[in-house]
This record gives sequence, C-alpha cells and structure tokens, in this order.
Amino acid sequence: MSKLLEEAVAELSKLPGIGKRTALRLAMNMLRWDKNDVKELTTAIDNFRENIKYCARCNNLSDNDICHICSDSRRDRSVICVVESVGDVQSIENTRQYNGLYHVLGGVISPMQGISPSDLKIDLLVENIEKEGIKEVIIAIGTTVEGETTLFYITRRLAQFKNLKVTTIARGIGFGDEIEYADELTIAHALHNRREITNN
Amino acid sequence: MSKLLEEAVAELSKLPGIGKRTALRLAMNMLRWDKNDVKELTTAIDNFRENIKYCARCNNLSDNDICHICSDSRRDRSVICVVESVGDVQSIENTRQYNGLYHVLGGVISPMQGISPSDLKIDLLVENIEKEGIKEVIIAIGTTVEGETTLFYITRRLAQFKNLKVTTIARGIGFGDEIEYADELTIAHALHNRREITNN
Repeated sequence: MSKLLEEAVAELSKLPGIGKRTALRLAMNMLRWDKNDVKELTTAIDNFRENIKYCARCNNLSDNDICHICSDSRRDRSVICVVESVGDVQSIENTRQYNGLYHVLGGVISPMQGISPSDLKIDLLVENIEKEGIKEVIIAIGTTVEGETTLFYITRRLAQFKNLKVTTIARGIGFGDEIEYADELTIAHALHNRREITNN
Repeated sequence: MSKLLEEAVAELSKLPGIGKRTALRLAMNMLRWDKNDVKELTTAIDNFRENIKYCARCNNLSDNDICHICSDSRRDRSVICVVESVGDVQSIENTRQYNGLYHVLGGVISPMQGISPSDLKIDLLVENIEKEGIKEVIIAIGTTVEGETTLFYITRRLAQFKNLKVTTIARGIGFGDEIEYADELTIAHALHNRREITNN
C-alpha cells in the first residue's frame, strides 16, 4: 500500500470504533474532498485539542477560563446539576428544561477502574456550594453500580449543608420502553414512586 | 456548546457514516489523547491528502509518479488485472495469489450516476496493452449491472488485440455461503461452470 495512505489509515484506526476497513473507507472518501475541506477538518481538530479548556468553576469544556453557562447572567445561580461528563451537559441542555448551573464530575467512582473520589471534582463542588450559597443540588448520574456509589458518596459529603436540598432525577420506565423488558428493580422503583393522575 | 468543540464535531460529522453523536464521541475521546498524538493524526491526514498521487501507468494510489507495484521488477509484466478501485488492489494483494500488474478504472460505467466510459481510465489501459505487449487481461470487477456493463464494454474495446487473452474472475458460490440463500443466476452460473473433482 502507499506509505501515505498506510499512515493515514493507521492513525484513523486509533479512533474508538474505527477499524482498518472503516479507516480505509474514510481516507478514500477524503480523496474526493477538496484539499481545503480536508485542511478545515484537520485544523478544527487541532484547534479543539490545542485550545480547549475546562471551566474553572464547573469543569465543563470551555473556550475560556469560565464556560458560557457559568458566565451567563440569565441562568438561575441557586441550582447546580451534577453530571458525570461533558456530553451529559449537552444532553440536558438539549431538553431546554433546565436553566441552572452545572458541575461536571469527570467520571464516576469506580474501584475496578481505579477511579476514587479524589479523582473527581467533588471538592470543587463542595467549595462552590459553600461560596455561592446554592439552594439545590440535582444529582443527574447514571444508575449503574458506579453511578449509585457516586450518588451515595456525594450525598454524604453534602450532608454538612443543613439548608441545601439534594435531589436526584426520577428513575422509572423510559418513554417508548415496554414494561415487559424493564428489569425488576426499575419496575419496583417505578411502582413505588407512582404518581396520581389528575383530571383537569 | 463550546465553539471549538462545536466546530470539531461539525467537521468530523462530514465523514461518511459519522453522525453528530459519533463525532462528539470521537472528539471527547481525543481529549484523552496526548496533544502530540492528535497532531500526528491530523498531520497524517494532511500529508495523505496533500501529497498522494495517482500512478501515471495504472491509476493506483501512489506516493510517487509510478506506484510501487508498477515499479517492482519482480512482478509479472505480461498480465494486467483490471479493477474498479484502489481498495480492490489491496484486496487482491492481500490474497498473495497474484503477481502481475494492475489497472484501476476509477469506477464503473453508470448512466444513472452519469459515469460514461470516457470518465474511466480505459484509454490508458488500451494504450498500455499496446505499448507493453501484454499477454493477458484479467477483468476483476463486481457482478452488479454496472460492473457487467463495464466488463462488456472493455471486452469489446480489447477485441482489437488478436493475441490477447481476456479473462474474468470466476463467479459462483462464495466460501462460507449457503446455496439456499444464493440467487438463481449465481446458482445457474455455478452449475454451468462445475468442475470435476479429481481423486489423487
């Protein structure tokens, strides 16, 4: 194979979920692009990797020292939504149902993967709550074993704030899901937390 | 979303088969890479797109004016294998069963997609056969309608060379395929071209 092609394929197949075959297909596809368009792609990647920062307040990805959410004066500065990763911020923003601040942990506690509480941005969260007089913390992390452990750990750390409301997002049957295929724990939880239907 | 991330995602999702979600996953993954490793990826892509050439003899991808196969003195210079695309050269090379030269058409005749014979490197093939005193041309293109049309067209163009042997790769049931799921045309062809099993 051409050395140039070989190197491009080798590099592209380092990306997650991209094997040799897909990498070859991507490289061959780029041959049909204008050279400037390929340059735009690689420049965007370089700029992103070189210049991206983490918000000093909430640990979200940011172009500046403080991210656009933390520096937005129209957001409700009394609520913090705690999430695992940057992608979760995007998912919640997409709903347009939340107007508070965020806090990105950067992972969940996982002894198996060697991630301990000190590897996550939990101290920064505690610091912010204290400094900013936060009224509510919504913990929005996945219901895996690691997620539940993290939820438990954070709840314990926040017990020191007597007037702070700590909530977690509702667990239950997702929209479009069949009860038949849901696991017992989810069904039990959904039953226990049933809601009265009001006719009005 | 961060402008830098947004731009990287927008560019990555221009690649075939990569949507916004996958692009976001790729970008987030690169954050965990060393900056130099990301630079190596983008440099490999840039080098490939900027410097790759098409072999002046066979139209294969090449780092130089003449590709490494055409300039390899150990190859059999009396046979040309005609293929649709650069990827096909790689597939045939991987078998290690062929030691001749190649000719990459750069597509197949497709009136639907506006690809006519003059868009393919057929004149160059005819020229090479004449100039190089080729003895056999193996046409190895897919059995689609477009492929068969191209096969027919090339065969007609090569009829002028009285001493040239023109062959095409065997059609039949692929290894690991069930007869039950093969189409009638393939089965009929495979039956017609049956081979005697020799006991020795």
